[in-house]
Amino acid sequence: MLNFVNDYAEGAHEAVLKRLIETNREALPGYGMDPYCKSAGQKIKKACQCEDADVYFLVGGTQTNQVVIASVLNAFEGVVTAQSGHINVHEAGAIESTGHKVLELPQEDGKLSAEVLKEYLDTFYGDENRDHMVFPGMVYISHPTEYGTLYTKSELKKLSSVCRSYDIPLYLDGARLGYGLACRDTDLTLPDIAKYCDVFYIGGTKVGALCGEAVVFTKNNTPKQFVTLMKQHGALLAKGWLLGIQFDALFTNDLYVKIAKHALNMADRLKEAFKEKGYVFYLESPTNQIFLVLEDWKLAWLQEYVNFSFWEKQDDTHTVIRLATSWATTEESVSELISIL
Amino acid sequence: MLNFVNDYAEGAHEAVLKRLIETNREALPGYGMDPYCKSAGQKIKKACQCEDADVYFLVGGTQTNQVVIASVLNAFEGVVTAQSGHINVHEAGAIESTGHKVLELPQEDGKLSAEVLKEYLDTFYGDENRDHMVFPGMVYISHPTEYGTLYTKSELKKLSSVCRSYDIPLYLDGARLGYGLACRDTDLTLPDIAKYCDVFYIGGTKVGALCGEAVVFTKNNTPKQFVTLMKQHGALLAKGWLLGIQFDALFTNDLYVKIAKHALNMADRLKEAFKEKGYVFYLESPTNQIFLVLEDWKLAWLQEYVNFSFWEKQDDTHTVIRLATSWATTEESVSELISIL
Amino acid sequence: MLNFVNDYAEGAHEAVLKRLIETNREALPGYGMDPYCKSAGQKIKKACQCEDADVYFLVGGTQTNQVVIASVLNAFEGVVTAQSGHINVHEAGAIESTGHKVLELPQEDGKLSAEVLKEYLDTFYGDENRDHMVFPGMVYISHPTEYGTLYTKSELKKLSSVCRSYDIPLYLDGARLGYGLACRDTDLTLPDIAKYCDVFYIGGTKVGALCGEAVVFTKNNTPKQFVTLMKQHGALLAKGWLLGIQFDALFTNDLYVKIAKHALNMADRLKEAFKEKGYVFYLESPTNQIFLVLEDWKLAWLQEYVNFSFWEKQDDTHTVIRLATSWATTEESVSELISIL
Amino acid sequence: MLNFVNDYAEGAHEAVLKRLIETNREALPGYGMDPYCKSAGQKIKKACQCEDADVYFLVGGTQTNQVVIASVLNAFEGVVTAQSGHINVHEAGAIESTGHKVLELPQEDGKLSAEVLKEYLDTFYGDENRDHMVFPGMVYISHPTEYGTLYTKSELKKLSSVCRSYDIPLYLDGARLGYGLACRDTDLTLPDIAKYCDVFYIGGTKVGALCGEAVVFTKNNTPKQFVTLMKQHGALLAKGWLLGIQFDALFTNDLYVKIAKHALNMADRLKEAFKEKGYVFYLESPTNQIFLVLEDWKLAWLQEYVNFSFWEKQDDTHTVIRLATSWATTEESVSELISIL
Repeated sequence: MLNFVNDYAEGAHEAVLKRLIETNREALPGYGMDPYCKSAGQKIKKACQCEDADVYFLVGGTQTNQVVIASVLNAFEGVVTAQSGHINVHEAGAIESTGHKVLELPQEDGKLSAEVLKEYLDTFYGDENRDHMVFPGMVYISHPTEYGTLYTKSELKKLSSVCRSYDIPLYLDGARLGYGLACRDTDLTLPDIAKYCDVFYIGGTKVGALCGEAVVFTKNNTPKQFVTLMKQHGALLAKGWLLGIQFDALFTNDLYVKIAKHALNMADRLKEAFKEKGYVFYLESPTNQIFLVLEDWKLAWLQEYVNFSFWEKQDDTHTVIRLATSWATTEESVSELISIL
Repeated sequence: MLNFVNDYAEGAHEAVLKRLIETNREALPGYGMDPYCKSAGQKIKKACQCEDADVYFLVGGTQTNQVVIASVLNAFEGVVTAQSGHINVHEAGAIESTGHKVLELPQEDGKLSAEVLKEYLDTFYGDENRDHMVFPGMVYISHPTEYGTLYTKSELKKLSSVCRSYDIPLYLDGARLGYGLACRDTDLTLPDIAKYCDVFYIGGTKVGALCGEAVVFTKNNTPKQFVTLMKQHGALLAKGWLLGIQFDALFTNDLYVKIAKHALNMADRLKEAFKEKGYVFYLESPTNQIFLVLEDWKLAWLQEYVNFSFWEKQDDTHTVIRLATSWATTEESVSELISIL
Repeated sequence: MLNFVNDYAEGAHEAVLKRLIETNREALPGYGMDPYCKSAGQKIKKACQCEDADVYFLVGGTQTNQVVIASVLNAFEGVVTAQSGHINVHEAGAIESTGHKVLELPQEDGKLSAEVLKEYLDTFYGDENRDHMVFPGMVYISHPTEYGTLYTKSELKKLSSVCRSYDIPLYLDGARLGYGLACRDTDLTLPDIAKYCDVFYIGGTKVGALCGEAVVFTKNNTPKQFVTLMKQHGALLAKGWLLGIQFDALFTNDLYVKIAKHALNMADRLKEAFKEKGYVFYLESPTNQIFLVLEDWKLAWLQEYVNFSFWEKQDDTHTVIRLATSWATTEESVSELISIL
Repeated sequence: MLNFVNDYAEGAHEAVLKRLIETNREALPGYGMDPYCKSAGQKIKKACQCEDADVYFLVGGTQTNQVVIASVLNAFEGVVTAQSGHINVHEAGAIESTGHKVLELPQEDGKLSAEVLKEYLDTFYGDENRDHMVFPGMVYISHPTEYGTLYTKSELKKLSSVCRSYDIPLYLDGARLGYGLACRDTDLTLPDIAKYCDVFYIGGTKVGALCGEAVVFTKNNTPKQFVTLMKQHGALLAKGWLLGIQFDALFTNDLYVKIAKHALNMADRLKEAFKEKGYVFYLESPTNQIFLVLEDWKLAWLQEYVNFSFWEKQDDTHTVIRLATSWATTEESVSELISIL
């Protein structure tokens, strides 16, 4: 069986694993106070070209979203998101469980536009009943989005500008950030993200780490007692260096982007092959995700050879599926899939 | 510098690490649906001699306590604990953050006695104002306790009996469970714990794993949609097999107990040496923790050679410190410390 | 200035106030344990023709929604509502503050249709990722709705049937229930509501009481320790009889419906007058609320004489406003408004 | 049956009720935006001699404690209280339900001493593990306490001074504040309380109002969007003027203190009579509460004539009971009770 089901099916990139093995017997301070977390933080700050950044390491994406959002919001505030945002759909109510509403706005290909956001904020602040409503206290976007689409630099700049005009922090969920940054056709860099966002996270779990996400507060704006809040959420790893060592490896010699590039190359080969064979794309994702519309008999045939994700039913006879490549996808498996097609 | 500061300063036991390396490139289903989690669960059930057990894997101790307790309690209930219980002191309010009161009772050497518990419950259910009070919905104990002490089989049985007479589930926090089970002088076995407790967890982080705790619901009593609740708490690891593989290794060939025994042997050598040199023990812990009362000048001297934990000031001139051994403690470091003494 | 701004601008109906005055010096048990709460509960059960009903009295609408919904939902569940539902828009996140997501569905004139609900539930339970999503644990509707519209008996029956097929309780917010029940053109009775809903509340604040809402659990299905949960939410009034006495008065000699009928008669006179004068209705509400579309110059003129509510801007030159009558609206004020028109 | 069971068994003082009757048909703005709330707030500020005060009206005591404490605390903070504090014992976990720990300290006759508080805070801030602990974010005291005892001016000043040295707000629960202020032997005035506390509430429910408590933030320190937070907690009364009118009456012509004085006079007559008859006092309360130790046969005899509160069993043959007078206690009932004795 070929595996294109997702980008978190295998362990860690070998260069990451190697560092874990090498450091296994070092006795290190707990809870992120070790030199590897420090070094990884420095490397990330440098990659972000952001002197005012504070970096923290958490274990997984939902946890990161929950801790960051709950720590930034006031009790009377909620978080604004595109309807399709991961926090709104597939995190089992993690945000609401901390007491905060997820304020959903319409999405376009998974993205939240500055115009939609501005109209919502203008309306909210023009509403004389707003004291009886949930205040927007943060804007959440994901990049790449849940549909594998990307914000352009101009789009992010505009979103950021709307947020700042209302003094609302902008948060970017980068669970798959590497696959966005490494794209051929993106003009959005890590320093751009650090500049336009108030906080974001660099995903490790899906880009070469065993686990781990690096949160970056970009304006010396870490919430008070953030470490205590992490602990309170059960998100402060005793062996915090487990995350520090991995990110230190990922941000050494550009490994993070390199392994993402590999995944994109694999995806490009597949996309080309699907195009040649006349497959219908559900949407054009420039990242490591491929969304196809299949007739159901073809779906049945394909799943005998390949593991992929069911995305949604399109109509009575068609289904949307998703294939994903990753740092772990091999040339051989791509070639084999192409030969099957 | 010798390291006796705690039992989570190093990575994973080599046999655990080896399995992670061997399986690194296997493509596995996410979120704990993989064969390793299944196999580890089976081995744990067998070790517990408990057919009705359900096993889940979480990342860390505070997270585990939070998810388990919040999932079991009704909204009008709190969790009963000895005053010294970890959830009451060193988890940054993780339980309260889920809406539940921690109901503290007096402790004796870190333990909650059946008598103290019974008196509290009798009083509570005899109080005609109890509808205005937080109901006891769970009893929490730790084993070994925060003071390194152990419940006897008889003590646990009595506690369990009080709990059952009031239909209140008993939960055992086994962050350091291995070091308790492997003790020479304990009569409490894993099957006993499974029998007398309604839910407990087997600590991995402090007993040879990189990270991970195994929760065991012992009476087919897993809360409804527990996986959804894990997700909601940010506690459902995408690469769940990371935990499954480690516990599968720990519960193969008795590794879990073996590595704990090693730590206890190391601790015994140290205790003997301290005794010989006339050191004063703060309390007698049969486990991998050693609590000493030092004159402050001696403290100053010792910390030039050894990393240990500050426990508390005893008086103006004396301090209580804690040394801990672990699976990672070497014969050499023990010998070296003894020679320093 | 004439007052048609809302239905909670004045105190209590005189018959209600009279009973408060008469009983002012009686020494009564607290927290709802008094004979008036009991008697009011009996009268409400009788009016509902529902032997299995349990009745509780709370102070206000948002409080009631919060306590009822949070008490019924499991931690992994949210509450389904039409997008326009009061809990989704104008309760400042009261539901989310208890940890639960509000799951919004499209509305039609403020109503949630059985078809829309069924499609959502079918999709949810057909989604293999549902363990990562918020489960629907309750359906919330309001009657009259926020737009002053009413469910027909057939519509409520269908909604109820969909809910029961999925074993999800149906909850009806009756903040203005009197004004719905007393309508000329409704076929939905209080016994129908008790039959088709699992829990609902009968609004007092807007229908003749100083304050107070009566919650009715219709199937002997009061959540465990509901009184404790009320207390925990700060919703258990020390002088609970303050609410019991008022509802006892409201459910004596049909007062509740009678005073609602008066408001509807007043509204009918106004609607007729507006129609005659060629005013444009935003929507047809059969209840005590009147929604008009005014040209902005007319709005400016009218607000010199009358207090009403701004509803929303329709376009650059038109505005939607709402007038409400109530038990306290006088014949004179209606005549005066008509003469102004 | 004579009623000395508590101070909230009857309705409202007649002067308060009169104002409710007089204003019953006035059409007033909702949610506390009416002129009566404004006027009552001004009168309270004047009585407090506190220009920087903001005044809000809530419905009941537990609600007030919940809303105030949750609004002031940061997520990583808890509230410090004497073990016997109402929030710790008889509010069904209302504070914890908002996510915050109640940090209990030893009490002395229901009071929290500055010394005990200082020692706790010194220890906390000296603890290097405090990042893993709940931070003290507010200090809660009640005055009169749950035991009917009173803080002296000097005690409150010292408490306040400790709080300020650690920049922690001091909150006073004045559910029975009138009965404290009107005491013969107190040197603590309302302006003192406004000076030494950062926030406190003036209880109405137990001192002549139908319901209602007035929260006073004393240093222009109202939490951001406090009205939204009230709404979110279900604590924003639609007919807010119901509370404003009552407090306006209570703070006109010193009514609040006058009616408390009456209760104290009644209590003094009773205390004298009990003393004469040789009854044993459990503790000396200068307020409207009387705590007696009765032999159980005497208890059985007395409860045939009088309603009082059971406080606690003292030993096998003795019981502590509480009698309370109030604004509603009549000379006749006191005389009758004395004649029974």
